[in-house]
Amino acid sequence: MKRIENVTIVGVGLIGGSFALAIKQAGFSGKITGCDNAAVLRTAGAHGALDRSEEDLVAAVRDADLVVLAAPVQANVALLATIAPHISPDSLITDVGSTKSEIAVNAKELFGSDALRKFLPGHPIAGREVSGVENADAMLFRGAPWVLTPVGGRHALIAPEFSLGMHREFIEMLESIGARVVVTTPERHDRVLAFTSHLPQLVSTALATTVQRELGGRSELRDLSGRGLREMIRLAKSDPQLWSEISASNIENIQEALSLMERNLAALRESLGAQGFRQLFEEGIALDPDAEPAPADGTDPPHFG
Amino acid sequence: MKRIENVTIVGVGLIGGSFALAIKQAGFSGKITGCDNAAVLRTAGAHGALDRSEEDLVAAVRDADLVVLAAPVQANVALLATIAPHISPDSLITDVGSTKSEIAVNAKELFGSDALRKFLPGHPIAGREVSGVENADAMLFRGAPWVLTPVGGRHALIAPEFSLGMHREFIEMLESIGARVVVTTPERHDRVLAFTSHLPQLVSTALATTVQRELGGRSELRDLSGRGLREMIRLAKSDPQLWSEISASNIENIQEALSLMERNLAALRESLGAQGFRQLFEEGIALDPDAEPAPADGTDPPHFG
Repeated sequence: MKRIENVTIVGVGLIGGSFALAIKQAGFSGKITGCDNAAVLRTAGAHGALDRSEEDLVAAVRDADLVVLAAPVQANVALLATIAPHISPDSLITDVGSTKSEIAVNAKELFGSDALRKFLPGHPIAGREVSGVENADAMLFRGAPWVLTPVGGRHALIAPEFSLGMHREFIEMLESIGARVVVTTPERHDRVLAFTSHLPQLVSTALATTVQRELGGRSELRDLSGRGLREMIRLAKSDPQLWSEISASNIENIQEALSLMERNLAALRESLGAQGFRQLFEEGIALDPDAEPAPADGTDPPHFG
Repeated sequence: MKRIENVTIVGVGLIGGSFALAIKQAGFSGKITGCDNAAVLRTAGAHGALDRSEEDLVAAVRDADLVVLAAPVQANVALLATIAPHISPDSLITDVGSTKSEIAVNAKELFGSDALRKFLPGHPIAGREVSGVENADAMLFRGAPWVLTPVGGRHALIAPEFSLGMHREFIEMLESIGARVVVTTPERHDRVLAFTSHLPQLVSTALATTVQRELGGRSELRDLSGRGLREMIRLAKSDPQLWSEISASNIENIQEALSLMERNLAALRESLGAQGFRQLFEEGIALDPDAEPAPADGTDPPHFG
């Protein structure tokens, strides 16, 4: 059975660079090739992230056992099509993009019935408001979800051909760097992330824009603000290019999430000083992303009394 | 000249309790009396915050040189009216409420031309999403703004009767606990805080409510979310009663801030995948509450070229 010996990372930014550092630290003994522009490759080299630097895409992926597409979302879609004819027959391609449906659809068109074997879409939910390989961190993925959305559905990875071989080895690699592997469909991924990631980002951005228009450049902004504001606008400092691409690749879900958010803000606005306010507030308090989820139907513990 | 020897704190919660601990740590050698219900006073006593516990309001404030009203916003307004006839002639009353116009108007009605001398409205911009004296912290105000909004305007504190005496001593007390004293009008305070504090709170609440309605109780909420969401909903855990009262006492400013926020969210929604998106995003990036504010008009540095 072929093992993962050559890993090629296309796009050596915060995520790609952190992945390289993380698998090295976890004991990966194969070769890591980075593909990006010369300046980025120099920085990545200086950070000790790469064993080999290669500006030429085809040369970079030709001998890879595992190709990690770690460019912005829409660049990954284009890269997948470009490298498809050049990768070796047994290699596995994955990506780390923040949306999954678009690239999964593209993979199906490119690889047909081979899509599940050739391409395993992924998304580590671990970012920072800073980007670039100079901020790469081997610990970035520790305790964070790494979502896999196999083309062909949620249970596809259980099939014998994927519970062994390259897919299994890649999953073990993710576990070795401390990530929590989560499997779902591309569609559910994009729906849920619209609420858990894309909406918080755009809310932070809209809040910062609103405050900037009212108080930008005034001394009052500094003198009459505290930690809450700073925390709520941290995400707003994110890279606009990355978020342009993410938003463009999940428009319908994000539109719906934003509409619901606008409606809840309006409801709060209309309830200021009135009864409904408290109820809306309590619903927000109830949100707990760290709660143990309720057991699925049929496995509920028995009720007594 | 009378000195501040007896401090009475009415409402010994997070802020009142932290203030007591902070001035003790800064070397205040007078007596600190706390007034609250018996259970709270017991907890405050166990935390070493008080020298004397007094459930009876009139008994608690009768001999005080400085009375700090540290109950929720609307309770402070009622407390001010209740204690007014019972305080000694030279004592100073202050409060720590999150809105200032309403209580300043009340003080003018109560004290007439004496309002500036008797009552100095204040607001330490230092909170936490937890409340109660059990979370009190002597370091809470360190580096945080403590806003004073003297009844009678921004420059009132420069008048000789207030640049000396009790007002001056109280300001020195605030500086001794590490707070950054800021002076403005009640009206500007409430306008600016609507954007820098009340809006971020309500945005966090509306975001949490939106996500709760879509994903509450589902395992996907935990498996497909990261640090960004958790950070953006931390404020949503705040006390609904406190925020009911704050919102009710600054309705018009908050309504306007919320309307502008709703408009900017709608603009982002309509620009997904299009040009305008980036521009809105860049405006948000420009917000910097820690920037040195531009010099005021007339003191601008000369332009060259």
